[in-house]
Amino acid sequence: MSASCELCNAGIGDVIVSAEKWRVILVDDANYPGFCRVIWNAHVKEMSDLDDADKAEIMRVVWQVESAQREVLQAHKINLASFGNMVPHLHWHVIPRFTDDAHFPNPVWAQANAVAPDTATMNARRARLPQLRAAIQTRLIY
Amino acid sequence: MSASCELCNAGIGDVIVSAEKWRVILVDDANYPGFCRVIWNAHVKEMSDLDDADKAEIMRVVWQVESAQREVLQAHKINLASFGNMVPHLHWHVIPRFTDDAHFPNPVWAQANAVAPDTATMNARRARLPQLRAAIQTRLIY
Repeated sequence: MSASCELCNAGIGDVIVSAEKWRVILVDDANYPGFCRVIWNAHVKEMSDLDDADKAEIMRVVWQVESAQREVLQAHKINLASFGNMVPHLHWHVIPRFTDDAHFPNPVWAQANAVAPDTATMNARRARLPQLRAAIQTRLIY
Repeated sequence: MSASCELCNAGIGDVIVSAEKWRVILVDDANYPGFCRVIWNAHVKEMSDLDDADKAEIMRVVWQVESAQREVLQAHKINLASFGNMVPHLHWHVIPRFTDDAHFPNPVWAQANAVAPDTATMNARRARLPQLRAAIQTRLIY
């Protein structure tokens, strides 16, 4: 635990699944409904700080979230990233991407495109979030 | 193999290690000496398209590259990302980050900072590339 680390604060985020070593949250991003974050609960900086079993464990969760996003959202592509430059506490971004989304084909941290999907398209994507949540829980809760 | 895919062209890139299923290349990026890419040789789109053994295999390579970058470059943070929006052929970016680098603390795909490291600093980082190459080869060639 690090008192100054926002990811050590378990109260932050819309938790989809919470386990002993990790949690999956739904990120509140208007452009990216279904954007999830897989957070390692312990205050660890890099993947190479985990032992082999823990590395496999967090990646298993990432793959299951990716799989659920593909199935439920029919995303064009899934983007995976672990940075931690601002918050050096291990977490993975798992982002469903669509060819018409706000930054496609660039990463979501690049400058936004001039044109983003219309409200109806975004609402249709948001409407699938309960199903995504259920699909992730089915894959990760035994 | 996909005739139109640039990553199916094995001739592209400064190869550090080449194996049957993957290769590690050194990316030519003036701002990020030591930036590596781990490319799966087969034309596969998403991590969840690989079976469990192949998932573990490509991630083992990513962790070894991360470990070599930490040891040799003494990077402040390692950034990992797999997008494939433009080239839907599985590859991982493994990027050594420094607190004074061109985009820190943002991802390297964000807008650049106004101030980047001076030439002497960048040259000192570049001078470690032969050692990085050797460290990656030591970890991945048996």
